[in-house]
Amino acid sequence: MSDVPIVRPVPISGFPEWLPGVRAVEQNWLDRIRATFERYGFCSVETPSVESLDVLAAKGETSQEVYALRRLQAETGDDSGRLGLHFDLTVPFARYVAAHFNELAFPFRRYQIQRVWRGERPQEGRFREFTQCDIDVINVDQVPLYFDAELPRIVHEVLTDLGVPAWTLNVNNRKLLQGFYEGLGIDDPVAVIRVADKLDKIGADGVEKLLVGTVGLSATQARAVLDLAAVKADGSAGVIEAVGRLGVKSDLLSEGLDELSFVLDELADLPAGSVVADLSIARGLDYYTGTVYEAKFVDWPGFGSICSGGRYDDLAGSFIRRSLPGVGISIGLTRIFAKLVAEGLITPGPASPADVLVVIPSDERRRAAVATAARLRARGLKVETYHQADKLAKQIRYASRKGIGAVWFPPFEDGRDHEVKDMATGDQAPADPETWTP
Amino acid sequence: MSDVPIVRPVPISGFPEWLPGVRAVEQNWLDRIRATFERYGFCSVETPSVESLDVLAAKGETSQEVYALRRLQAETGDDSGRLGLHFDLTVPFARYVAAHFNELAFPFRRYQIQRVWRGERPQEGRFREFTQCDIDVINVDQVPLYFDAELPRIVHEVLTDLGVPAWTLNVNNRKLLQGFYEGLGIDDPVAVIRVADKLDKIGADGVEKLLVGTVGLSATQARAVLDLAAVKADGSAGVIEAVGRLGVKSDLLSEGLDELSFVLDELADLPAGSVVADLSIARGLDYYTGTVYEAKFVDWPGFGSICSGGRYDDLAGSFIRRSLPGVGISIGLTRIFAKLVAEGLITPGPASPADVLVVIPSDERRRAAVATAARLRARGLKVETYHQADKLAKQIRYASRKGIGAVWFPPFEDGRDHEVKDMATGDQAPADPETWTP
Repeated sequence: MSDVPIVRPVPISGFPEWLPGVRAVEQNWLDRIRATFERYGFCSVETPSVESLDVLAAKGETSQEVYALRRLQAETGDDSGRLGLHFDLTVPFARYVAAHFNELAFPFRRYQIQRVWRGERPQEGRFREFTQCDIDVINVDQVPLYFDAELPRIVHEVLTDLGVPAWTLNVNNRKLLQGFYEGLGIDDPVAVIRVADKLDKIGADGVEKLLVGTVGLSATQARAVLDLAAVKADGSAGVIEAVGRLGVKSDLLSEGLDELSFVLDELADLPAGSVVADLSIARGLDYYTGTVYEAKFVDWPGFGSICSGGRYDDLAGSFIRRSLPGVGISIGLTRIFAKLVAEGLITPGPASPADVLVVIPSDERRRAAVATAARLRARGLKVETYHQADKLAKQIRYASRKGIGAVWFPPFEDGRDHEVKDMATGDQAPADPETWTP
Repeated sequence: MSDVPIVRPVPISGFPEWLPGVRAVEQNWLDRIRATFERYGFCSVETPSVESLDVLAAKGETSQEVYALRRLQAETGDDSGRLGLHFDLTVPFARYVAAHFNELAFPFRRYQIQRVWRGERPQEGRFREFTQCDIDVINVDQVPLYFDAELPRIVHEVLTDLGVPAWTLNVNNRKLLQGFYEGLGIDDPVAVIRVADKLDKIGADGVEKLLVGTVGLSATQARAVLDLAAVKADGSAGVIEAVGRLGVKSDLLSEGLDELSFVLDELADLPAGSVVADLSIARGLDYYTGTVYEAKFVDWPGFGSICSGGRYDDLAGSFIRRSLPGVGISIGLTRIFAKLVAEGLITPGPASPADVLVVIPSDERRRAAVATAARLRARGLKVETYHQADKLAKQIRYASRKGIGAVWFPPFEDGRDHEVKDMATGDQAPADPETWTP
């Protein structure tokens, strides 16, 4: 053992890691998410974790959260000072599409499941390193509205398949908001959107005060803004009626309402409450231009959004002189998964993936045991071989501790039967390596 | 389109990214590697990409390659200054085992497939961000030699399964080297190992000069060191004979020779040339204490190692006052994969994972098309729906550009047949959404 001082081995706060049984569940989730994305024809893309700070700043908003790199001992010509870890997958994807524009077929639909980093103060649901699962569609010049409805359908399928507890995907449309504000005679609708986005945090009174005091709306305008934000409806008819009742009119409002209605109608077959129009959803980011999404747990409304996204017209425009609008949605995998772990809703899998443990009866029979394991593996089974001849009780106990469901006894002499012990029932019976199944 | 200046969207050198068809192959590789690891009962572990610099320095060698983090706008109490990206998966794994010691079952065998970062100058085969696929076994107090042989067997199975061009896994043993040097009467065998490790780079003459001039060996000793390094043999008999001929004796040498022979004997069933004793392999890192591995392409001997690893007695000792020896091996996935891409040996997969594209014959039939796609997906098929009603020729061309093998025509009126066009043959025929297979 070393004499050097002990470095405390705790993981750093905000950087989650899981024990093997929990990791097995996370891995299974990732596989299922990927499978659903691929069932909808999305291809896999990964981008480097590192981009130039210029690229990361192209969206112009989140630079204070960026982790920049530095070399401990930088050499001449070292460029690490202008590199940083990506904080989302949308900006790198826009950069990727611009970089490979001539080699991609459009509309380009990709999924991207990767870690991202944000230098935030850790708190419940906020991590500094976390995995996001994104799907986006980018096309040249225009993206059919069809995709604004297909993406929530895919997210619905993913969350349903994973058995995530009740959630609501709230949908809104930035044109609807902006058009409504314009119809109210407001000059700077974007400023209103930024304030209205704080409704969750500061409440209606707080928003009203800001709208009047800071943005300069009249009390009537501010009241109307809040009335619109209070509109929630399951289907398009309810939204159209509720917005109509507010008596505000503009072309942009009509366009936004049409788009939102299309999305809701298209998703009308999903279970009630899973996709809901919520006109308080604004998504503070400037680059959204149409549909916006934000999903929350029904039972933990204060927990923050577990999926978010929307339609953007010009993200790739920082990198290429082409019009490349897109629409995308991001599932906050780590946020969801860690919450369910914390709530005790994730049942850890076994600590070993093995279907069976092959014991080593004696040093003389070690090779026979290894050969038996090889035969089982050749059939695609997952097989751990115990590592040395040892008391059988000890080897069986090891299988039990690792959650391995069966223990295989190769014959103690050539020509005798193989036997398998079912760890759940304790039964032991002869078995054939060529036909046995777990 | 934006008026802001264009940021060049090129990926940064040393940070590889792939087009979708190539990424599909990489993803397939990753799945197969994982499957092989799990067939041998290794469980999945992931650790954060970020560790404290103290942890990263615990191995005490590679700090100049570490990318440390910095927040662009750090707040009071911010700890990013003492955080860095991991440069391998062995140190984080040792930290993980120490952190979760009481919750793990030993011997603990895990696989870990993650990106790592090194602030190196990019060159062929050297990346600044790359994926490694590691398997390690760590146990309390002692790790049976059995594992020293099992790990190369697994790597052999992985590389064979992937169809990687001819490679050799070279094996040596540090006890053998150290014992031999001690038998020669050399006082500082570790200094000799460090010099001998440079044989590849500076040649026999260069090593001899350093051994005599810097380490202070006699010419006879230096000659003997080089004679040992020249020993290569397929099996244990050849190694024992060749080392015996050199006439040097020590207990440690015998122990190392026994261990190496055990590993070679245990792997004697693998194809000739795939595992070879090469006594020039030293692995410069101080922490190896027994078996060492290093794999190279047969046809590109100058390319550098594509797998490496060995046995270490005390890596976790920096984090916990327990004896936790281990043995591990790491497959340099990105290095191998990028080389094969560069050599034109990777045939890209299709740009879309979809088995079939469902066309939208008209706006009126869009929902029928979407419903047909849903029926196919419910059967587990991968289905892309075209995004809008459009000329059929255009929709078919899109399938062709994306490499989708079949195009599905939902009926143009209810009650008519579905039809499917096979894109390879051009044949079009009626098909049933409940029974069709790609």
